[in-house]
Amino acid sequence: MTHTIRILGIDPGLRATGWGVVDQTGARLAHVAHGVIRVEPSAPLAVRLAGIFSEVSALVLAHRPHAAGVEETLVNAGARSALKLGQARGAAMAALAREGLDVHEFAPRQIKLAVVGTGAADKDQVSFMVQRLLPRAGKMTSDAADALACAICTAHHAGYAGRAA
Amino acid sequence: MTHTIRILGIDPGLRATGWGVVDQTGARLAHVAHGVIRVEPSAPLAVRLAGIFSEVSALVLAHRPHAAGVEETLVNAGARSALKLGQARGAAMAALAREGLDVHEFAPRQIKLAVVGTGAADKDQVSFMVQRLLPRAGKMTSDAADALACAICTAHHAGYAGRAA
Repeated sequence: MTHTIRILGIDPGLRATGWGVVDQTGARLAHVAHGVIRVEPSAPLAVRLAGIFSEVSALVLAHRPHAAGVEETLVNAGARSALKLGQARGAAMAALAREGLDVHEFAPRQIKLAVVGTGAADKDQVSFMVQRLLPRAGKMTSDAADALACAICTAHHAGYAGRAA
Repeated sequence: MTHTIRILGIDPGLRATGWGVVDQTGARLAHVAHGVIRVEPSAPLAVRLAGIFSEVSALVLAHRPHAAGVEETLVNAGARSALKLGQARGAAMAALAREGLDVHEFAPRQIKLAVVGTGAADKDQVSFMVQRLLPRAGKMTSDAADALACAICTAHHAGYAGRAA
């Protein structure tokens, strides 16, 4: 008996937070939805963070995933960037856990390995493979592709079995 | 006619988030409450962040402040620390804004200037002055003292007039 597991992947950012939802049934992977949360860049920081929190909560309510995956933020971009990214990530992860989801974290190279087959893949290869694995997804921004890649990686790990291809 | 303004100060951290509430009536400052939010350090990151979010929301509901103040995080501690602090800050600020509060941010030296009278004050001087300005506050940890200092600074700025001493 095969049952379907639904995963929400999130790629947090203060300007744009990518998201993607996939269903995995046995070894089959299916695209459900994807998009990008954008908050008014001129709004006060706390209002932008509350916006990310609210939108992520709404995604969980709309798609009812069983688990979530978030990419571990790269911290080689300097302390100021890390702080900004951390804030967006904190708001998004708080929303996921508050909706009762298990939140899995993956390093960028784990995600690349799961999607492309090599941890050294570049951004274009990740996008290309996400489109191949999820042909019905259609056009997407790189934020959404990264979020879908994270959802695929989460489906592979965390005991959700099966391979995507 | 003098009316009372209530301010919630928050000093976010992943291990300990200090908080303090003060009332300002004209030039008079009064201590209302203070404390530290601690989340289970062994819990998954997202659960800890959701805990900070929930506790900060509960503080707003319990004390009904008119505005909030948060210290700007120092980013000279390295990218990894900045990311951790950013995550706690993101969860706390999202909670404050989601409860409808204006969230003011202050650099550490602005807070020191408002409380001690010099932006170059050290941590002990800040604690000492917080205790002098709020004699009824009693004993407190440095996290709570920093949060009360931030609340005092917020009361001084942002059009909430008056001086504390």
